[in-house]
Amino acid sequence: MQDGDDRRSYDRGTSIFSPDGRLYQVEYAREAVRKGSATVGVTTEDSVVFASDTSTRSPLLERDSVEKIHDVDGRLGIASAGHVADARRLVDEARRFAQAERLRYGEAPGVETTAKAIAEVVQESTQTGGMRPFGVGLLVGGVVDGAPRLYETDPSGTPSAWRATAIGSGSDEIRDYLETEFTDGLGTDDGIALALDALRTGTDELTPGEAAVATMDADGFRSMDEDVAAGHFRGAS
Amino acid sequence: MQDGDDRRSYDRGTSIFSPDGRLYQVEYAREAVRKGSATVGVTTEDSVVFASDTSTRSPLLERDSVEKIHDVDGRLGIASAGHVADARRLVDEARRFAQAERLRYGEAPGVETTAKAIAEVVQESTQTGGMRPFGVGLLVGGVVDGAPRLYETDPSGTPSAWRATAIGSGSDEIRDYLETEFTDGLGTDDGIALALDALRTGTDELTPGEAAVATMDADGFRSMDEDVAAGHFRGAS
Amino acid sequence: MQDGDDRRSYDRGTSIFSPDGRLYQVEYAREAVRKGSATVGVTTEDSVVFASDTSTRSPLLERDSVEKIHDVDGRLGIASAGHVADARRLVDEARRFAQAERLRYGEAPGVETTAKAIAEVVQESTQTGGMRPFGVGLLVGGVVDGAPRLYETDPSGTPSAWRATAIGSGSDEIRDYLETEFTDGLGTDDGIALALDALRTGTDELTPGEAAVATMDADGFRSMDEDVAAGHFRGAS
Amino acid sequence: MQDGDDRRSYDRGTSIFSPDGRLYQVEYAREAVRKGSATVGVTTEDSVVFASDTSTRSPLLERDSVEKIHDVDGRLGIASAGHVADARRLVDEARRFAQAERLRYGEAPGVETTAKAIAEVVQESTQTGGMRPFGVGLLVGGVVDGAPRLYETDPSGTPSAWRATAIGSGSDEIRDYLETEFTDGLGTDDGIALALDALRTGTDELTPGEAAVATMDADGFRSMDEDVAAGHFRGAS
Amino acid sequence: MQDGDDRRSYDRGTSIFSPDGRLYQVEYAREAVRKGSATVGVTTEDSVVFASDTSTRSPLLERDSVEKIHDVDGRLGIASAGHVADARRLVDEARRFAQAERLRYGEAPGVETTAKAIAEVVQESTQTGGMRPFGVGLLVGGVVDGAPRLYETDPSGTPSAWRATAIGSGSDEIRDYLETEFTDGLGTDDGIALALDALRTGTDELTPGEAAVATMDADGFRSMDEDVAAGHFRGAS
Amino acid sequence: MQDGDDRRSYDRGTSIFSPDGRLYQVEYAREAVRKGSATVGVTTEDSVVFASDTSTRSPLLERDSVEKIHDVDGRLGIASAGHVADARRLVDEARRFAQAERLRYGEAPGVETTAKAIAEVVQESTQTGGMRPFGVGLLVGGVVDGAPRLYETDPSGTPSAWRATAIGSGSDEIRDYLETEFTDGLGTDDGIALALDALRTGTDELTPGEAAVATMDADGFRSMDEDVAAGHFRGAS
Amino acid sequence: MQDGDDRRSYDRGTSIFSPDGRLYQVEYAREAVRKGSATVGVTTEDSVVFASDTSTRSPLLERDSVEKIHDVDGRLGIASAGHVADARRLVDEARRFAQAERLRYGEAPGVETTAKAIAEVVQESTQTGGMRPFGVGLLVGGVVDGAPRLYETDPSGTPSAWRATAIGSGSDEIRDYLETEFTDGLGTDDGIALALDALRTGTDELTPGEAAVATMDADGFRSMDEDVAAGHFRGAS
Repeated sequence: MQDGDDRRSYDRGTSIFSPDGRLYQVEYAREAVRKGSATVGVTTEDSVVFASDTSTRSPLLERDSVEKIHDVDGRLGIASAGHVADARRLVDEARRFAQAERLRYGEAPGVETTAKAIAEVVQESTQTGGMRPFGVGLLVGGVVDGAPRLYETDPSGTPSAWRATAIGSGSDEIRDYLETEFTDGLGTDDGIALALDALRTGTDELTPGEAAVATMDADGFRSMDEDVAAGHFRGAS
Repeated sequence: MQDGDDRRSYDRGTSIFSPDGRLYQVEYAREAVRKGSATVGVTTEDSVVFASDTSTRSPLLERDSVEKIHDVDGRLGIASAGHVADARRLVDEARRFAQAERLRYGEAPGVETTAKAIAEVVQESTQTGGMRPFGVGLLVGGVVDGAPRLYETDPSGTPSAWRATAIGSGSDEIRDYLETEFTDGLGTDDGIALALDALRTGTDELTPGEAAVATMDADGFRSMDEDVAAGHFRGAS
Repeated sequence: MQDGDDRRSYDRGTSIFSPDGRLYQVEYAREAVRKGSATVGVTTEDSVVFASDTSTRSPLLERDSVEKIHDVDGRLGIASAGHVADARRLVDEARRFAQAERLRYGEAPGVETTAKAIAEVVQESTQTGGMRPFGVGLLVGGVVDGAPRLYETDPSGTPSAWRATAIGSGSDEIRDYLETEFTDGLGTDDGIALALDALRTGTDELTPGEAAVATMDADGFRSMDEDVAAGHFRGAS
Repeated sequence: MQDGDDRRSYDRGTSIFSPDGRLYQVEYAREAVRKGSATVGVTTEDSVVFASDTSTRSPLLERDSVEKIHDVDGRLGIASAGHVADARRLVDEARRFAQAERLRYGEAPGVETTAKAIAEVVQESTQTGGMRPFGVGLLVGGVVDGAPRLYETDPSGTPSAWRATAIGSGSDEIRDYLETEFTDGLGTDDGIALALDALRTGTDELTPGEAAVATMDADGFRSMDEDVAAGHFRGAS
Repeated sequence: MQDGDDRRSYDRGTSIFSPDGRLYQVEYAREAVRKGSATVGVTTEDSVVFASDTSTRSPLLERDSVEKIHDVDGRLGIASAGHVADARRLVDEARRFAQAERLRYGEAPGVETTAKAIAEVVQESTQTGGMRPFGVGLLVGGVVDGAPRLYETDPSGTPSAWRATAIGSGSDEIRDYLETEFTDGLGTDDGIALALDALRTGTDELTPGEAAVATMDADGFRSMDEDVAAGHFRGAS
Repeated sequence: MQDGDDRRSYDRGTSIFSPDGRLYQVEYAREAVRKGSATVGVTTEDSVVFASDTSTRSPLLERDSVEKIHDVDGRLGIASAGHVADARRLVDEARRFAQAERLRYGEAPGVETTAKAIAEVVQESTQTGGMRPFGVGLLVGGVVDGAPRLYETDPSGTPSAWRATAIGSGSDEIRDYLETEFTDGLGTDDGIALALDALRTGTDELTPGEAAVATMDADGFRSMDEDVAAGHFRGAS
Repeated sequence: MQDGDDRRSYDRGTSIFSPDGRLYQVEYAREAVRKGSATVGVTTEDSVVFASDTSTRSPLLERDSVEKIHDVDGRLGIASAGHVADARRLVDEARRFAQAERLRYGEAPGVETTAKAIAEVVQESTQTGGMRPFGVGLLVGGVVDGAPRLYETDPSGTPSAWRATAIGSGSDEIRDYLETEFTDGLGTDDGIALALDALRTGTDELTPGEAAVATMDADGFRSMDEDVAAGHFRGAS
């Protein structure tokens, strides 16, 4: 592509437009998301299910310290793909936000409100100088007032709601799979199985025990034990 | 065009003039607007109508989370084209402004006042360092004291009032169509039909159910259900 | 011109001198003024007259929202040429200034005082870092204590007083016309006619109804209705 | 000159030294002074006289709004050459300074004190980042406690006292003339004549009526009417 | 590799993404860690063991002033590899954090909480402008509530938990060795021996007396005397 | 010298080291000192003598306004070479310092304390961003508690004490002369003669009446009348 | 070396990593230390000895004003090599620190604590923007609670303890000499002799009277008279 020189001119500054109206830094941050290990989110009739690839290279690493899925406040969950340290920072923002809302209004914020609060922080990082964008995509899920909701936030700070989606490495293939296989009104167990199946579509070598699974339902956020999660692998059930 | 080198020199800084008196960053932000999916605004005898292209690629995406049309305060509406996250930030500004005015003066601000308050925020982003312009165009509409008013704000921070207009992808064609077809004193239903017809002029493949419609009249802001909106498609009525 | 390289070196920084003592950013901002649609100001025996080209390309645009002439405080008026959003910001400064003076001294400021206050804001934008100059020229007019006064402020922040002058596109031709045709002691109607004639000198295709006219006299600022203004077109009288 | 490249490297930053210990931005600001229309200052036995070239191209411009000579506080005067808007800012500084001193010490500051206060502001603009130098030279004059004093401040922030001097276009020729013609103990009228003669040395086409003249003596600052000043033109007396 | 030019473009700014979503400054800081002398951390049944290469070139240097292992608060320890001065700053952060937590909650923070607090400081240095990343990797260890925990923080600000690991020069070889030789439920003495053996894998010439050893168990942090540590060298026992 | 390119790379930033550990901006500021007209300082048995070249090109300039020698507080004196406006700023710092010390401790500061306070200000200008170094060298002298002391501060912020020294144009030659001719225990008159002789060594054409002379002794700072100083010219005595 | 271009890219920014994990600005500041005149520190049984090269080129310079060795608070001493003005600033930091500690804890800080406090200030200058590193190395010495301690701080902000060491020009040779000749348990006089011998190793032409010597023991800091120090020159004893 012969516009190499032009492009290089615009992707250095953290927050300026290219002649064709693009923000390259945001697009590069999206690339960081695409390089992260995959995470799937699925809504079921009465829950939201997260499944994340937590395969690691070293047997000495304690896998659950890799933290792809975060409990925000006992109700909501956040799963991430991309720059891990950036994800942690946004999860902290979400926790502070949830706590502040609870103190101010006597009630914890819903999924949409929380996702939008995170998205605002992210948008600001793309417009105000002195800061790079966040190199991470998030799924925010939970069941508030009986309604399972699943939001995605991307590095541009745009929130969007999904019935099922994926972020990270292989997410295009996973989303294709979900578009074919997802049906409304699944039970939680079927949702877990679908999420794990979809996850394997994007990352072939994933074996049972290498995926973290969490569910959010009316009873709140629950992180599934690794072996229990392994038992949900469709071939393994 | 042989002034490639010159131009490149001036479009890097966020807020300086080129030798011919242009602000390239603002022009590039306009390009971001032109790349956004289209939005149409039409004034009728007693209402303002917004119609926005909300077609998406994935059936799993919950379309109304894409948010092209925003309810500011139950009376005024804002529709956008361009960088979605930037639009959300300006809508937040508008909400804060409306609330603050209401508290200070006991009365909510009109369409013109609100549009100009937004435009001020946008202008500042083009002159003060450390911030890129907003990559979004807005339509601000509502009926205050019986008068339907429709304003546009562009990335330079210039507000302008229209009887009918469009922003985003294909807006030139849509505006041509409106200049031919618009007449004063339409009823709201005819206004909706005109807005949807115009929208299809710019984005041919738009099918019923892929457009968000909202109306603002003396009773306030109302977002139309997707199917109801689909029923207004002229071929479909 | 072989000093291309040199010049390019100095016009990037917002506020530094070139070797020959010029401030290129200010000169480029002047270019933005020269590109704006024209505005004429004329003093008469007991009034100041503004006439501005407000021709637009779209019949759907509400022309008086283009705002070339602003009522500052019921007495003084400001007409602009150049970057519209920048003009609005300076008009806001003028309004705040007039209000603050009134509160502090129990009396509204005169034309000269107001023009100089604006000029100070503009000068600062050319010297202090982190801000581009204002890409707009202003005419400030009014009748205070019986004396019609007309001031111009340019992008360098220099105020100057005129009996009649023009800014914006074609202003050199308009000013030539005024130097020939202007006489002291005109009545307001003749002043309007002269201003419109002069305006047409710079923008040939201007037709009646495409010019905004406002007068400032002992009774204060008055914006003329479009048709009334059209009736003053010399051919039409 | 083959050090073109080197020089270009140092004159970009607002406040750094070149290898030979020069501050190019200050030297370029001096160039802006040299381009301004000329101003002459002369001390006489009991007064200080300023004469400034205020010739303009347009007969519609009100010449005394060009403001080459400023009344600081009824006693002291400041005449300028160079960037007009910068001069106005420094005159404002001088006025604020004079007022503050008066409030603090119950007595207005002398010529030397005032000139040095201005020079301090100017020096700071050449050393601290984020600001360009002032592109203006000033003459500060007045009679305090019976002593006529005339100071010059240049863009480096250096004050110096003169019996007679000139700044602006043609100032080298004017100063040569003054060195030959100036004598101590002139009366004010002879001082005015000398100042006007000297001014014409630098700007040949200056005609009576195109020079502003002001005097400062024990009775304070007085701006001379244009015609009166014209009457002092030596050929005309 | 032909992308040399591209890369160079992105690794200058402290906190921006490259087109493939990488943060080069963080990767270069990792290189600083890889250049530091090695440190090993091992968890045993009831303790955490640190062993660090403290070999120096000069016999006049007091080796224990090199400070590879730090006592945070009598309970937790931090071992580092990389830029020594940066390590000291983070250890100070950890000490302040532990003290503040103790004051606020009446209880000292655990290993995970402390490691994450450090990681947050590190992440911020990679995103906010005006600061380079920390060129140091840390191991944070301790036994809190009976559970031996070992965390690593890297220059990106990502925390991870390990049963045994190494950072610094030769850490890949050391980690390979640990993956083969580590077993759960070791006693502290065997843990020390394993740590020293592993350390020697990465730095062949290490002799007894050139390694610092510290243990953290239920009784708190203990730095081992050099000779005692030397006695644990497997060949030497 | 073929390292031209390298050097140019380091002398742009105001406060960074070159690969060989030099601060070019400080060295260039020293060049500004070397270009200033010369100043000599000599200690005698009971006084400090300053002699400065104040020759000027114009007979209309009031020479004592050139201000090479400053009375700090009636006791101490400061003589300068280099950028005049910078010198004035440092003298102001010295005055503020002397006054503040007097208020705090009931006693004016000595020569050494004052010189070091100035040097601190200068050092800071070489290390902290956003400011260029001071392009001036100073001599600080005075007799406090019976002891004549003479300090020099240079653009790096290093203070040093001398029995006799010189700064500015030709200072190497002058210092050579002083090293040969200076003897301890001179009387003040001989000190003045020596200082003037030395000054002429560096600036041959210096004639009586073109040198400013000041003495500081137990009775305080005294500026010598020009003619009196002229009378001390050795040929003239 | 063909990586010239690469290196140049990284040594401009004050605080970023090169691809191989180095901080060039810190390394260049080390070069400034290596260019400074040498300083030796030696611990003896009950004292710390400093010896510094204070040879100067001019006999008129008062040598003890060169200040290579500083008395911090009557107990501790600091000797420096490198940028003199930077050393003075750090010594001021040390003095403020010692005083503040004394006020807060009723007890002056020890050598280690003081050295680390200085090192912290230095480290910060290498990481936070807007400041260059300190171009100076320090030796901090003293006898606190009977224990002679000698610390070095380098431009990276790393503190280290030594029994004997040297910084500045020729320090490698001096350290080699010390490694051979130093023995534990020296008396103070022998320590002075060793320090002077070592100093001469690095700077051959050093003659008696050109070295400053200071000792710190249980009785506090003592600066030795020049002649007394000269008497300790081994050839001279």
